[in-house]
Amino acid sequence: MDRVRLGIAGLGNMGTLHVNSVRAGKISRLELAAICDANLARREQFPGIPSFATADAMIASGLIDALLIATPHYSHTPLGIAGLKAGLHVLVEKPISVHKADCERLIAAHQDERQVFAAMFNQRTDPAYRRIRALVQDGGLGEIRRVNWIITNWYRTAAYYASSGWRATWEGEGGGVLLNQCPHNLDLLQWMLGLPVRVRAFCQFGRYHDIEVEDDVTAYLEFANGATGVFIASTGEAPGTSRLEITAEGGRIVYERDELRFARNAVPMSAFSRSSPQPFAQPECAETVEPVPDHGGQHNEILQNFADAVLEGRPLIAPAREGIRSVELANAMLLSAWLDQTVDLPLDGARFERLLRQRARKSPRAQRVITAAAAVDLAKSFNR
Amino acid sequence: MDRVRLGIAGLGNMGTLHVNSVRAGKISRLELAAICDANLARREQFPGIPSFATADAMIASGLIDALLIATPHYSHTPLGIAGLKAGLHVLVEKPISVHKADCERLIAAHQDERQVFAAMFNQRTDPAYRRIRALVQDGGLGEIRRVNWIITNWYRTAAYYASSGWRATWEGEGGGVLLNQCPHNLDLLQWMLGLPVRVRAFCQFGRYHDIEVEDDVTAYLEFANGATGVFIASTGEAPGTSRLEITAEGGRIVYERDELRFARNAVPMSAFSRSSPQPFAQPECAETVEPVPDHGGQHNEILQNFADAVLEGRPLIAPAREGIRSVELANAMLLSAWLDQTVDLPLDGARFERLLRQRARKSPRAQRVITAAAAVDLAKSFNR
Repeated sequence: MDRVRLGIAGLGNMGTLHVNSVRAGKISRLELAAICDANLARREQFPGIPSFATADAMIASGLIDALLIATPHYSHTPLGIAGLKAGLHVLVEKPISVHKADCERLIAAHQDERQVFAAMFNQRTDPAYRRIRALVQDGGLGEIRRVNWIITNWYRTAAYYASSGWRATWEGEGGGVLLNQCPHNLDLLQWMLGLPVRVRAFCQFGRYHDIEVEDDVTAYLEFANGATGVFIASTGEAPGTSRLEITAEGGRIVYERDELRFARNAVPMSAFSRSSPQPFAQPECAETVEPVPDHGGQHNEILQNFADAVLEGRPLIAPAREGIRSVELANAMLLSAWLDQTVDLPLDGARFERLLRQRARKSPRAQRVITAAAAVDLAKSFNR
Repeated sequence: MDRVRLGIAGLGNMGTLHVNSVRAGKISRLELAAICDANLARREQFPGIPSFATADAMIASGLIDALLIATPHYSHTPLGIAGLKAGLHVLVEKPISVHKADCERLIAAHQDERQVFAAMFNQRTDPAYRRIRALVQDGGLGEIRRVNWIITNWYRTAAYYASSGWRATWEGEGGGVLLNQCPHNLDLLQWMLGLPVRVRAFCQFGRYHDIEVEDDVTAYLEFANGATGVFIASTGEAPGTSRLEITAEGGRIVYERDELRFARNAVPMSAFSRSSPQPFAQPECAETVEPVPDHGGQHNEILQNFADAVLEGRPLIAPAREGIRSVELANAMLLSAWLDQTVDLPLDGARFERLLRQRARKSPRAQRVITAAAAVDLAKSFNR
């Protein structure tokens, strides 16, 4: 095999973006072989490409080697399972599923290691996050003590939420900012620092928009080593903030406004505290500022990595099985807010699914007025 | 009266600083008339100034018109009451008392409005905080939505905590970073934004030091208008962070690294969300950066304001009665952590006092080893 025949399921914002990238030849050895969407008008935007009304028909067509899933969240699980069972390689948009139990079902369907199964965590290609992860994981920073991530530049208008019937409902989407926008951040958080062991979240539901799901979150985290954290996200704030701060014994990293700012202690802070005779002294500290000139290959780098994994066995940047972690963290935040309690991880996935279904049954989805959105400039939606 | 004869009670770090400022003539029309401290060696550092072993003796001496209280926290209440009852003007170091019930007792003793009763909230003299407060209070920012204050540059060594027997014990000090370092920040927070109505705090006790009180705090706040907040403080982190972010409908203020950064929305963010036809658009926003060239007159400005208030009736920068607010907020954070629950304000002061006393009775104070601290450079202790 010298090229991968890709079928793209779902021609919404993301699916359309990927169709255009692959059609434009931006991904070496990846060929757009088929598309599917229930909506005829969407399919007709791409004449000349074999198209199907259902993913099942596309999967059964024999036209594709690999399936890219860019449909609404709940369908990631059944489509992913169908693709894997048909022997296809699968690349799934984030989140890999809506909730932990569905993630487990999806991951369990990946029985054959020869099938590549990847997730679209494109922000893992950002050199800044790669750098931070390397610094954390090679131990150069010393023990991690605190993380603070304010990621409130996911601003969305009322028109955004009115653009599709499934959006921002328990029944159709399964969550709000935590499920739709934050999977990237939650994935990066666990990718850099591991999962916390305890979460206490304060979610506000429909704070800024006329929606039933959360559009504003403040979460407190505790990690196994005692490190603490705060994660703040919102789709209501403009201009919004994107600022990640990690404090460790050896210093501090701040990533904000396309700069990485490192403070390095000459002596680890706790060791200095124990040994200094001075009440108000502190360790010598050198600060350096590194510009972050670009944000990496993003979606196209993930697509290329997927094709390379299929053709050459190249290791994946984001194996789909790791996608359960950001979902579990998002679920834990919602559960904590619903229960008004601290939630321990690992999460009870069955309990979460049950409580989510209770909410989905009450979704006033049928009453929503769906309006055609104005022309979409999706580049504005990819925050870092 | 053309000058104020001041008596300073307590010759620890802060009292000594104030003695030196007043002796050096830095405060117009304020004269150092007497000092008191139970420790003879401390008194003997200042020959030629009438000195007393007890504050009661100094108060009764007839030598002073005004009393500055810079003794350990618990004694602020009885000394303040004694000074007020003796008809003196009183300036009390922060916190005005250890807990809300003591604050109420102290404030109740201020019966005669002709007596000036002020608190040492020197950070209210910082032009940056004054500017932010004015912007918030004149409504120019629109409705406040979120505040995030990371104030972890209160680094203290083990030597600091070992320098006095009363420090960092429930019995001797009544709290840790919230009572000793953060009163400034908690006062500024309520001065700028008002008190929250609900607090959920996660305090760690002796996380970085061998002490029984809190040296690390993460608190979630909710305000009456629905605004949310996070307050993070620590005496264990070096280099530590000082970053205040306030998000409002009209934009955002960030105060960090001696810069005020304003983002102003052309249209309030929620109004834009409701009216825009674009799913990913956001309001036009202009950002300006203002350097903060200095931090105001600080302690000496408060001392001067106190003297001017006594001599000319000048309005106080920090009336002592406002000092109850930062104490109530600190108490609420401790109570939330003790109970592992959300705490509503107004706080039940009697309940807090009872729970604090339970802890004080178990204080292992007698077992602590007190070491003489190395020469103190107190300038390093005043963070902004």
